[in-house]
Amino acid sequence: MPRQNVGTPITVLERHLLILDAFEAGTAFLSLSEIAKRCGLPMTTVHRLVGELEQQRLLERLPDRSYQLGLRLWELAARTPRAMGLREIAAPMVQLVQNQVRQHTQLGVDGGHDVVYLDRASRVDAVVNATIVGGRISLGASAIGHVLLSGKSPDFIQELVAAGIHAYTRRTPRTVEQVLAQVEKVRANGYAVADGFVHLDARGMAAPIYGPQGEVLAGLGVVVPANEPVSVRIVDLLRHAAHGVSQQLRAAYIDPDHPHALPGARFRMLINSSRSSMEYFDEA
Amino acid sequence: MPRQNVGTPITVLERHLLILDAFEAGTAFLSLSEIAKRCGLPMTTVHRLVGELEQQRLLERLPDRSYQLGLRLWELAARTPRAMGLREIAAPMVQLVQNQVRQHTQLGVDGGHDVVYLDRASRVDAVVNATIVGGRISLGASAIGHVLLSGKSPDFIQELVAAGIHAYTRRTPRTVEQVLAQVEKVRANGYAVADGFVHLDARGMAAPIYGPQGEVLAGLGVVVPANEPVSVRIVDLLRHAAHGVSQQLRAAYIDPDHPHALPGARFRMLINSSRSSMEYFDEA
Repeated sequence: MPRQNVGTPITVLERHLLILDAFEAGTAFLSLSEIAKRCGLPMTTVHRLVGELEQQRLLERLPDRSYQLGLRLWELAARTPRAMGLREIAAPMVQLVQNQVRQHTQLGVDGGHDVVYLDRASRVDAVVNATIVGGRISLGASAIGHVLLSGKSPDFIQELVAAGIHAYTRRTPRTVEQVLAQVEKVRANGYAVADGFVHLDARGMAAPIYGPQGEVLAGLGVVVPANEPVSVRIVDLLRHAAHGVSQQLRAAYIDPDHPHALPGARFRMLINSSRSSMEYFDEA
Repeated sequence: MPRQNVGTPITVLERHLLILDAFEAGTAFLSLSEIAKRCGLPMTTVHRLVGELEQQRLLERLPDRSYQLGLRLWELAARTPRAMGLREIAAPMVQLVQNQVRQHTQLGVDGGHDVVYLDRASRVDAVVNATIVGGRISLGASAIGHVLLSGKSPDFIQELVAAGIHAYTRRTPRTVEQVLAQVEKVRANGYAVADGFVHLDARGMAAPIYGPQGEVLAGLGVVVPANEPVSVRIVDLLRHAAHGVSQQLRAAYIDPDHPHALPGARFRMLINSSRSSMEYFDEA
């Protein structure tokens, strides 16, 4: 939780974001005084800022006078190529993997020092898993993180370790040597296995998704029970599915004027609907 | 597209949103001068506002110096109970319906005069469908819209018609009588059928999802080819699945201190992961 002292000179935008950031996974509904307390801002300031955010539908007031984050944030997020766009393109492959593995399947992208998760499919009886959609886990601790690190320089890995990797468990890699060992395995094998790094009972496995320029853009992974032999079937499935997403991404990012461009080319960075729907968007 | 004349007195927040709203489904990447043109703001102003938004990760600059909406919008949207939260709770039922119907399955919620779509599962060979995730279609034209209207007053329907319902096709209901006829069918039958209202080849079908207070909160629907007999099997499946989501919602919104509250109760408005994961969130 970012907290600011009263009187710290911050911009209007930073103040609005401070209010929005007060709403977290365990605190989805907040009263004005709870917002004020979490943000360390005076009630009069919070009252004014919340009023502005409500007016613009970034906050919604509930009958009990508490607030929740508003639907307009969803409408804006829907136009992010790196989040919703990638999620749309990957969705059929996420579902394919989930229908086979029946534990947790997830898609994650580079968020600085963390993986930011774009999608997660789960079953009620699946193994324990710390991932939430829109949430973060350190690049150093996560199988998708190791996949993303395989595209990074040694300097970046030094910097990540220097900033500190949270010790989710006693097995979480936290030194340059430990992180590099994981990254080298990804480079050699084409997939990551993270056994007990986030929770001792859980194994993350992930394969790289490549962007249109051949860069490591994202990771497609599963979380399965730890301490069983690594399943070759799951490794093959993940590599096949991640490769499929990479191909779809290349197709989606072809210049709309290129002769090989698909119907609805202008929309494919954000929308992956049926063939006839994509043709319809072209005409509309 | 909202456009403003130079010098129109608008707030800082409105200016920031004007910039973000310039990014639409067909224009996911924009240069500074394209943003300036779409917003009707001077380049110097746009340069400053874009700099602030990039600094806060609401915009991301690409190697070719164009901009896209940033990952932070996704992270904020992930904490909206009415969007991501409902999507998480409904996800298993959306998938159940999609695995059976194999056309388009979608989830939509009340966005004023429009349905705002939270999820859509599709197949490449499915019928034409105008729905995009985060997009809007008039309540008057959509099967999910008719489901949402079944919880509204006659005054609201008057107001909706007076504001004007877009004529997607010649069959789109656009008068109070036409809209009321649809709404009364939903009230009598418990589901909506919208034949050719958005595209002549497509039929929307939807069933209501009820919130914890018994209000119509959302609609779960499919889009299938029009002009075939209405499938009783699909109607039953939709009603069963929508009822399942309503039950899950009631369970998710039980007070965390209530003896019937489920593990991870504080998080269930936003997260629907496996049982052991929900227990883990309680401990973390």
